[in-house]
Amino acid sequence: MKKVYLDNMATTRVLPEVLQAMLPYFGELYGNPSSLHSWGDEAREAMDEARAKVAALINAAPEEIIFTSTGTESNNLAIKGIAQAYQEKGKHIVISAVEHFSVMHSVKTLEKRGFSSTLVPVDKYAMVDPSDVARAIRKDTILVSVMHSNGEVGTIEPVKEIAAIAKKAGAVFHTDAVASAGNVPVDVKELGVDALSLAANQFYGPKGVAALYVRRGVRLVPLFDGGIQEGGRRAGTDNVPGIVGMGKAAELAKKDMAARANLLQPLRDRLIEGVLKIDHSILTGHPSARLPHHASFCIEFIEGEAMLMLLNLQGVAASSGSACTSRALKASHVLLAKGIPHALAQGSLLFGFGVDRTAGDVDYVLEVLPPVVDRLREMSPLYDKYIKARHGVA
Amino acid sequence: MKKVYLDNMATTRVLPEVLQAMLPYFGELYGNPSSLHSWGDEAREAMDEARAKVAALINAAPEEIIFTSTGTESNNLAIKGIAQAYQEKGKHIVISAVEHFSVMHSVKTLEKRGFSSTLVPVDKYAMVDPSDVARAIRKDTILVSVMHSNGEVGTIEPVKEIAAIAKKAGAVFHTDAVASAGNVPVDVKELGVDALSLAANQFYGPKGVAALYVRRGVRLVPLFDGGIQEGGRRAGTDNVPGIVGMGKAAELAKKDMAARANLLQPLRDRLIEGVLKIDHSILTGHPSARLPHHASFCIEFIEGEAMLMLLNLQGVAASSGSACTSRALKASHVLLAKGIPHALAQGSLLFGFGVDRTAGDVDYVLEVLPPVVDRLREMSPLYDKYIKARHGVA
Repeated sequence: MKKVYLDNMATTRVLPEVLQAMLPYFGELYGNPSSLHSWGDEAREAMDEARAKVAALINAAPEEIIFTSTGTESNNLAIKGIAQAYQEKGKHIVISAVEHFSVMHSVKTLEKRGFSSTLVPVDKYAMVDPSDVARAIRKDTILVSVMHSNGEVGTIEPVKEIAAIAKKAGAVFHTDAVASAGNVPVDVKELGVDALSLAANQFYGPKGVAALYVRRGVRLVPLFDGGIQEGGRRAGTDNVPGIVGMGKAAELAKKDMAARANLLQPLRDRLIEGVLKIDHSILTGHPSARLPHHASFCIEFIEGEAMLMLLNLQGVAASSGSACTSRALKASHVLLAKGIPHALAQGSLLFGFGVDRTAGDVDYVLEVLPPVVDRLREMSPLYDKYIKARHGVA
Repeated sequence: MKKVYLDNMATTRVLPEVLQAMLPYFGELYGNPSSLHSWGDEAREAMDEARAKVAALINAAPEEIIFTSTGTESNNLAIKGIAQAYQEKGKHIVISAVEHFSVMHSVKTLEKRGFSSTLVPVDKYAMVDPSDVARAIRKDTILVSVMHSNGEVGTIEPVKEIAAIAKKAGAVFHTDAVASAGNVPVDVKELGVDALSLAANQFYGPKGVAALYVRRGVRLVPLFDGGIQEGGRRAGTDNVPGIVGMGKAAELAKKDMAARANLLQPLRDRLIEGVLKIDHSILTGHPSARLPHHASFCIEFIEGEAMLMLLNLQGVAASSGSACTSRALKASHVLLAKGIPHALAQGSLLFGFGVDRTAGDVDYVLEVLPPVVDRLREMSPLYDKYIKARHGVA
């Protein structure tokens, strides 16, 4: 059976060059970068090099990069760390209604500690209107966080405009760029952001390593107390092989970004065109302002999880939303926020393309998906009701 | 030049078998364990297997293991998470004076949120007297944390006795077993602990992965908000290769623990015997109740960092305390707590033995160390003063 992995928003394959770069740091150059000897020096130099590469990917300075373990940790550190550092100025936070739960629930946790928040709505494409952010900002707003792109529906948000509004209002601006960084150009200076989250496993780097960019001068209360690693901002033994892998992945992403997008975007468009031929299917997210490797749909009258199971039996890996909550089997807050009815949101189907994919893979998906949809609709009471209503049967 | 790595308390080498076990999970079996397809299933099965192996190392149930990124994260999660979960019962915490900064500073952070704490003193071996813990416990004590062993001076603490005292008082008991787990027998049931931290890089597993044991029924507020990974207790994409590596390292540690101790303890004793022949040198920590791979000293009249530099020039890696704070160049709070004067504490020197070491390595260290000490003492104003005083020179 053909095996077609199209779940790159959940995680990507580690590229061979990335793994090769990591390998010496397990059993040979295994020092702790905090140690005062040559084993430590080797590890520290490798980390410095990786830090420079990750910084270069987003046009930051190396000392503005804090290595963490996951995008979720980066988002928690940004939201909780910045809010706590600036709480004497005010305790109000503005975020969009389509943020990842690591942002959204961090804000909820802060609300238990006396903070308040405003959720900015989105349009039918899950796009934030910067003027809505401007309206949500109050005198006591200390932090605004709007994601760079949405991993569930692929929409790229107008972050530059929002960052300028936050800056004018004197609030710190953070963006969750986990789905974007390494896949589309992300330039912290051009965007004018104060903090930005990125994760290696979204651009062919390893799991277990991510980063938070924090602009020089922006304060942050650490999540972890302990040692003085990462300039005192992230205690704990550094994950040297992971960090080296993230550095290599960042270097490759910077070099190959345009070529990868040129490869994947036509495949994505071919898939979108084919899937939309299925009756009662819609594209979710923005049709053009979207990640080049991202295609997402709602297929009416059926459930996403059932589609995933049947696609999996055909060797196709996809998802129905954020992997972080896929086992919770709830309708996506992103789809609901963009105005999709609850029943339709259940039929969410999301494909993330990786550099291994070919036009043949897309054709294969377009061959196996329609029968899957037909089979599930045959079993669907909702579809049955719809057909009967259409044919005037009571 | 001979290369002798004796800094295994800072971090260990990843064993070849451990790396081999990890390798498939980078570029082949790269699924996200939260995903609903076969790539996700493979990753989840590998994680389940690793979880069972880590649980077996400490005689826990697999569902009592939460994977984290570092021992520091495990300690932060335990201290902050348990304190927050039980704060309606009381807000007092008892810890020892020789805890790692990830415990000690977590408690300080909680003090800013209305908690209070009592620091239990230690004796000249850095050993806690359980009756001091009993005296420190109040009616509003909700959490007691005393480490299983001290990474700086090697002393193994009477955790079983302390856990029983905490239990009787109705407080949750956590132990930081980062230096112990995988090196000496640690059995959560026999010890009677409620929570226990361990880290893979302390027993030949990779950096970037650690765990927290939490006994069934013990509550915990997560550090990270976001997805529902690790039973909702640790959000964020799972570090599958790291977790698989920790599983393999735990399996090997369980199997080889006695053999490793039998190899390393005589080497350690040979080193202790030799180093104590140096004038004005003392062993720190307990002479017998200590980690089998741990030797630590204070060498009077000189500074630990200078010794490390000169030893490094001879190819020997050692440390002068916790790697987490080695670059802070401050006298160790552990040495000060056990009553060593500030000046003597500066001359701290710590060796952690790994399974690659031989008697020849020890002899080499005993050959190069005395001249290093002599050379530094020649430059030491303190030593000069001492010699003059001894010879009656003003």
